[in-house]
Amino acid sequence: MIIILKPNPAPKQLESLKEWIKKMGLDIHVSAGAHSTILGLVGDTSVVDIDLISAMEIVEKVQRIQEPYKAANRKFHPNDTIIQFGNVKIGGGHFAMIAGPCSVESRAQIMEVAEKVQQAGAGALRGGAFKPRTSPYAFQGLEADGIRLLLDAKKQTGLPIVTEIMDLSQLHLFDEVDVIQVGARNMQNFLLLKELGKTKKPILLKRGFSNTIQEFLMSAEYIMSGGNPNVILCERGIRTIETATRNTLDLSAIPVVKELSHLPIIVDPSHATGHAKYVKPMSLAAVVSGADGLMIEVHNDPPCALCDGQQSITPEAFAQLAKGVEIMRESMAKEQAI
Amino acid sequence: MIIILKPNPAPKQLESLKEWIKKMGLDIHVSAGAHSTILGLVGDTSVVDIDLISAMEIVEKVQRIQEPYKAANRKFHPNDTIIQFGNVKIGGGHFAMIAGPCSVESRAQIMEVAEKVQQAGAGALRGGAFKPRTSPYAFQGLEADGIRLLLDAKKQTGLPIVTEIMDLSQLHLFDEVDVIQVGARNMQNFLLLKELGKTKKPILLKRGFSNTIQEFLMSAEYIMSGGNPNVILCERGIRTIETATRNTLDLSAIPVVKELSHLPIIVDPSHATGHAKYVKPMSLAAVVSGADGLMIEVHNDPPCALCDGQQSITPEAFAQLAKGVEIMRESMAKEQAI
Amino acid sequence: MIIILKPNPAPKQLESLKEWIKKMGLDIHVSAGAHSTILGLVGDTSVVDIDLISAMEIVEKVQRIQEPYKAANRKFHPNDTIIQFGNVKIGGGHFAMIAGPCSVESRAQIMEVAEKVQQAGAGALRGGAFKPRTSPYAFQGLEADGIRLLLDAKKQTGLPIVTEIMDLSQLHLFDEVDVIQVGARNMQNFLLLKELGKTKKPILLKRGFSNTIQEFLMSAEYIMSGGNPNVILCERGIRTIETATRNTLDLSAIPVVKELSHLPIIVDPSHATGHAKYVKPMSLAAVVSGADGLMIEVHNDPPCALCDGQQSITPEAFAQLAKGVEIMRESMAKEQAI
Amino acid sequence: MIIILKPNPAPKQLESLKEWIKKMGLDIHVSAGAHSTILGLVGDTSVVDIDLISAMEIVEKVQRIQEPYKAANRKFHPNDTIIQFGNVKIGGGHFAMIAGPCSVESRAQIMEVAEKVQQAGAGALRGGAFKPRTSPYAFQGLEADGIRLLLDAKKQTGLPIVTEIMDLSQLHLFDEVDVIQVGARNMQNFLLLKELGKTKKPILLKRGFSNTIQEFLMSAEYIMSGGNPNVILCERGIRTIETATRNTLDLSAIPVVKELSHLPIIVDPSHATGHAKYVKPMSLAAVVSGADGLMIEVHNDPPCALCDGQQSITPEAFAQLAKGVEIMRESMAKEQAI
Repeated sequence: MIIILKPNPAPKQLESLKEWIKKMGLDIHVSAGAHSTILGLVGDTSVVDIDLISAMEIVEKVQRIQEPYKAANRKFHPNDTIIQFGNVKIGGGHFAMIAGPCSVESRAQIMEVAEKVQQAGAGALRGGAFKPRTSPYAFQGLEADGIRLLLDAKKQTGLPIVTEIMDLSQLHLFDEVDVIQVGARNMQNFLLLKELGKTKKPILLKRGFSNTIQEFLMSAEYIMSGGNPNVILCERGIRTIETATRNTLDLSAIPVVKELSHLPIIVDPSHATGHAKYVKPMSLAAVVSGADGLMIEVHNDPPCALCDGQQSITPEAFAQLAKGVEIMRESMAKEQAI
Repeated sequence: MIIILKPNPAPKQLESLKEWIKKMGLDIHVSAGAHSTILGLVGDTSVVDIDLISAMEIVEKVQRIQEPYKAANRKFHPNDTIIQFGNVKIGGGHFAMIAGPCSVESRAQIMEVAEKVQQAGAGALRGGAFKPRTSPYAFQGLEADGIRLLLDAKKQTGLPIVTEIMDLSQLHLFDEVDVIQVGARNMQNFLLLKELGKTKKPILLKRGFSNTIQEFLMSAEYIMSGGNPNVILCERGIRTIETATRNTLDLSAIPVVKELSHLPIIVDPSHATGHAKYVKPMSLAAVVSGADGLMIEVHNDPPCALCDGQQSITPEAFAQLAKGVEIMRESMAKEQAI
Repeated sequence: MIIILKPNPAPKQLESLKEWIKKMGLDIHVSAGAHSTILGLVGDTSVVDIDLISAMEIVEKVQRIQEPYKAANRKFHPNDTIIQFGNVKIGGGHFAMIAGPCSVESRAQIMEVAEKVQQAGAGALRGGAFKPRTSPYAFQGLEADGIRLLLDAKKQTGLPIVTEIMDLSQLHLFDEVDVIQVGARNMQNFLLLKELGKTKKPILLKRGFSNTIQEFLMSAEYIMSGGNPNVILCERGIRTIETATRNTLDLSAIPVVKELSHLPIIVDPSHATGHAKYVKPMSLAAVVSGADGLMIEVHNDPPCALCDGQQSITPEAFAQLAKGVEIMRESMAKEQAI
Repeated sequence: MIIILKPNPAPKQLESLKEWIKKMGLDIHVSAGAHSTILGLVGDTSVVDIDLISAMEIVEKVQRIQEPYKAANRKFHPNDTIIQFGNVKIGGGHFAMIAGPCSVESRAQIMEVAEKVQQAGAGALRGGAFKPRTSPYAFQGLEADGIRLLLDAKKQTGLPIVTEIMDLSQLHLFDEVDVIQVGARNMQNFLLLKELGKTKKPILLKRGFSNTIQEFLMSAEYIMSGGNPNVILCERGIRTIETATRNTLDLSAIPVVKELSHLPIIVDPSHATGHAKYVKPMSLAAVVSGADGLMIEVHNDPPCALCDGQQSITPEAFAQLAKGVEIMRESMAKEQAI
C-alpha cells in the first residue's frame, strides 16, 4: 500500500499516522521527494482500512498494491480449490452442471425434472424454496415444504441439491442441503456471510447484479475468514445499459477471477440472459471461457412456470445443451494441448 | 395492462389465458386486428405477475399501463403522507434534518455530536450500531452497545433516534428506536421488509445503489402491504460510470417520486457524494428539488472517524449548512407563491 | 405500434392525430375500452417518430411492436448477409480474422506484422492511421502516411486492409481501403454514416461504448438506408460498473443480433478486455457464441506500442490463438450437427 | 506520477525507462523498498502517456497524482474564467439563461420563441439547425436555412445565438453564430475539438452521455490546447440504470467541476430529464448547486414540436421558471454571505 501525503504534512499528525501503522504490524518505507512524501507500507495490508487513511487531513491519496483479500487470493494459495458434494467435484479441472427449476412447485414437478436432468448428465439438482420477488403480490415459494420436496428428489435420484437461503432465520432448514446458495441480492449481506463462514458446507455465492469482481471476492473472503473454505463463485450477469437481455453476462469475469483467485467459478446463463433462446450459446461460451460449471434453469413446462418461465428450458433442450457442453469440453482439452 | 398476442394464437391456449385472467377478478377487452390481437386487462392489475404472462407461448409482449404498486401509489392516495416521530414531522410540507455520525464509537462521541447537531437544528439523531463493511477486517460497529448509547443520547437530548437494522435477528433490539433504517444493500431483502411491515414504526428505506425508482417503490409496497404505512424514502445516490463522487446523487428522483407516490422522500448527500466538501451544495440543491428532509453525517473529529470519515462534516459545518437550508426553505416558499 | 390514449381525449385532437397517421400511409385500428382507448397502427411504422407522438397531450404511452429498423431487420431479410472483400467472406457461415496493430507506426512495423498475421491465418490486416486520443498530448497517428503504409502492406501480402475513418474530410484517402471502420465514438455520427451509405464499400461499424443493441442496429440502418448494404457489426464491449477489464464484453449481443438482424457480427476482444492475457479466452468464447469473425490487436513489440500496448498480443500468441479458433470452429460444426 | 515496478525489474529495461522519462523533461525520484521499487516523476506529467508506461513489462501499476489536463486545471489558473458573448457573461459570478426550441422549424416559430424568451429574461437564443436523429426516418433539421433563421432572430431581438455543429464541413456556416455548441455525441470527436480550438469563438461543450468528469475536462483541454480558452461546459445527464428520466442529471458534477477547473459550467435540465414537468425543479436545484447558467428548451407549441416536444416547456412556463431562478440566485447570495 502506498500513501501519498499532501505537501508539508504536519509533523505531529505524520508521527501519529506512522505509529498507528506500526501498531498493525506493518513496516513503513518513507520516500521524501521534493514535492510530496510517499509512505510505502510493507506487510499484510489486507487488514488496513483504506477509507480511514484516506480521510486523514495529511493524506492526498492511498493506493493499494496488494488486493484487499487474502484467503481468496491466488497469490497465497496458487493451486485451484476443488469443492466436492455428493459425487460432484467442481474446480481444478472438474466441471459440473447444476440444473433444475427456478422454484419448486410440486412433488410431481420436481421429481420429473430431477430424473430428466440426471439422465441428461446434470451432477446436482437446483430448485428455489424461498422466492421473495420484486412484487409482494407474486408467488413467493413453497418455503420449508419446498426444501422437503428437494430432499425427496435427492433420495430418489441421488443427486445432491443446491438451494438458496434468504435469511439467517432459515439456516436450521438447510441441514441436509448439500450446497447453500447465496443470491445476488444477498452478496453483501455480511451477517449472513459470516454465519455461513461458521459452517463447513459448500456455499454457492452469486455475484451481485451491480458489484465488481473485487467486491465479489471480498464477499467470498467474508465466508472464508470465518473458517469455511468451500466457496463456489457464480457469475450471473450485471445490470448495464443494455435491455435486450435481463442482465449482461460478464464472461470476461471468468479469466479475471481465475487469475485473481483459486476458487472455482460457474456461470448461470439463465438469469443472465433472461431468455431461454440465449441459454445454449451462452452456456457453450461459458465453458470455453474457462468456467468450472454451469447452473441452468430447467422446467418441465416453461410457459406454466410460476417464476421466471421465460428463461427456463425444457429437459429435452437441456439434454441437447449437455451434449454441446461435452463437445466444448473436449475441444478445450484439445486447445490446451496445442 | 395490455397483452399483445403473437399472430394466430392457438385457440385453446388463448382460452386458458383468458380464464386465468378472469379468475384474478379482471375484465378483458379483446381487440382483434388484422396482424395481431390485443387483450386489454381492466381492474386491479397490481396483483398480476407480468413475468408469468410474458413467458406464455402465445404472448408477444406485455405492457403495464398502471404501476405495479398500489399502497405507495399517489393515484390511490392523492394527499402527501406525513410521518411523525418524536417532535419531528416529515412530508406534506414538513421538513426535517437527521444528523449524526456514521458509526456510534463511544459515549463521549455520540453525546457530543447529539448536543451539537441539536443546537444547530437537527430534528433527529442518526448513528450506526451495526456496520458490516465490505472488508471482514474493518471495524464492524458496537452492535447492541451502540444502540444503548444512542438511547442514552436520546434521553439526554430528547432527539428521536434513527439507526439501521441489518438482519431480522436484531429486531428485538429496536423496541425503543424511533425510526428503523433499511440500508441500500437491504432494499430488496424482502423477508426483512415483510417483517418491518408488521410493526408500526417509521421505516427509513434507502434506495439500493443500482435500483430504479420503480423497484424502490415496490420495496416500499412490501412494507406497506404488510400493514405499516410509515415509510420514509431516502435517495442516496446510484452507481454509475462516474467515479469522482462515491455514487451519483439522483436529484431528479425527488420530483419523480413526488409525482408517483405520496410518501415523503429525503436525501443523504453524505453517502451519495462521499466527500465532505460536496455535502453542502448537494444539501441545498436537494431542498430546492423538493426533498422533505436531509440525512447528514456529522462527526466531532472526521479524520479519526472509524468509518466513512471522508464524507463526514464537523458540527460547525453542519450548523452553517443548517442556516443555508433555512434560507433555501424560505426561498422555496417564496417561489411557490409566485 | 400501439398508442394508448389518456382517458377522454379531446375529439378534435384525436381527429388530427388520426389524420396525421393516415397521411403516413398507415391504417388505424381503434379499440375503445371502458377506461382507455387504444390505437393500433398497421403498416410500415419504422417511419413513425415515436417521440413526436409521445409528446402529444392526449397520448398516455406509445409502444412499438415492430422494431424501428427495416433494412437491417431479419424479418424482412431472413437470409444471412455475406460480405466479401479481397478473398475474405464474413457472415452466412463464413468466418474471418482481422489482425494488426492498433496504430501504424512505421514501414518496418506494419510489414512485419502483416506477414506474420497472414502466415498465422488472418484474412485481413487492420491498423490505425488516425488515432485521436483522450489526451491532446498523446500520439495521434501517422494519418495519410499511415494509410499509404497500409496500402504498401496490402500490395506485398495481398491482405485486404481495414482502417478507421474519423471524419468525413478524410474520405478521399480511403479510395483503395477495402473496409472502412467506424469507431465506437462515431457510432452515432449520423452525418458520417449517411455519407458512408453512399459508397458501396464494406463498413465495419463498432458498437458505441454505452449504446444498446437497438441503437447499434439503428446506426447500421443509417448506412443501409443510404444504399449501402455492406455493414459488418462489431461488438467491442460496453462501459459498466466493472473496472477489472477496460470494458465489459457483451457476448450475449451475438445471439441477440443474430436473431434480430441478418448482418454479420464480429468481436474485438482486445479493446473489450484491454489486457493481452484475456484476449485468447474471450476470442474462443466469441467463436462459440456464434460470432462471424474476430478483430485482434497484434503488435511485434507490445511493450513499445505507441498506443494500447497493454492489450496487444505478439504474432506468436496470435498464431496460437488462431489454432484455438480453428478447434472451436470445428467443435461448433460438430455441435450443430447433433 | 508514481510508477510502481514489479519485483526485480530487468536492469536494462529499467535504464531505458528512466532515460525515456528524462527525455520528456521530467525528474525521477527512485525509492527502492524491500518488495518493490517506486519511481516518482516530478515535473509536468500531463504530457506523459500513461497507457504506454502501463504496458511495459517491468511496470506493475501507474498512478497519476496530478490531473492529466493543464489548461483547464484550476491549479494552474485559480481564478474563474468569464466568457462573454453579446451582452451575456457566464462564469465568475455571472449567470445566464440560454433558451429556445430544440429545432428551428420555421421563421414564425423562431421569431415568436425568441421574443418571448427575451421578455422572460433569457440572455441568449438556442435552436438546432442540424438534427441528425437516432432514426434515419425522423426529421433532420432545416440545416443552413435554420442558421439563417436564427441569425434573423438575432437581428430582430439582439439576442446572441447558440447552435450546434455536427461536422467540420459545416464550420463555414457558423461565422456569425455567437456560441458553437458541441453535442454530447461529439464530446470525443477530437478532430472537431481541435479545429474549434483554432477559432476564438465561445464553445459550449456538452458532456457525453457516458463520459466521466475527467474525460469531459480532457475534451475541454483539446479545445484549449489549440489556443481557444473560451469553453463553457454543460452538464446534461448521464446514462444510468434509471429509466424514469431520459438521463440521470448529475448535479454533483457542478461542485466537482468547480473544484477541478476554472471553466464555467451550465446545466441543461431539458435533455437530462426528458420531461417538461421536471425541468423547473431541476433548474432551481442546478442554480443552488452552483451552476453558472441554464440551457432550457422552450417551444411555442410543445405537442407539435418536430423534435423532443416531450421535454420542451412553453414560453409562459419559462417566464415562471425565470422568476424562480431569480429567487434562487438571491438566496444563494444570502447563503454565501452567512
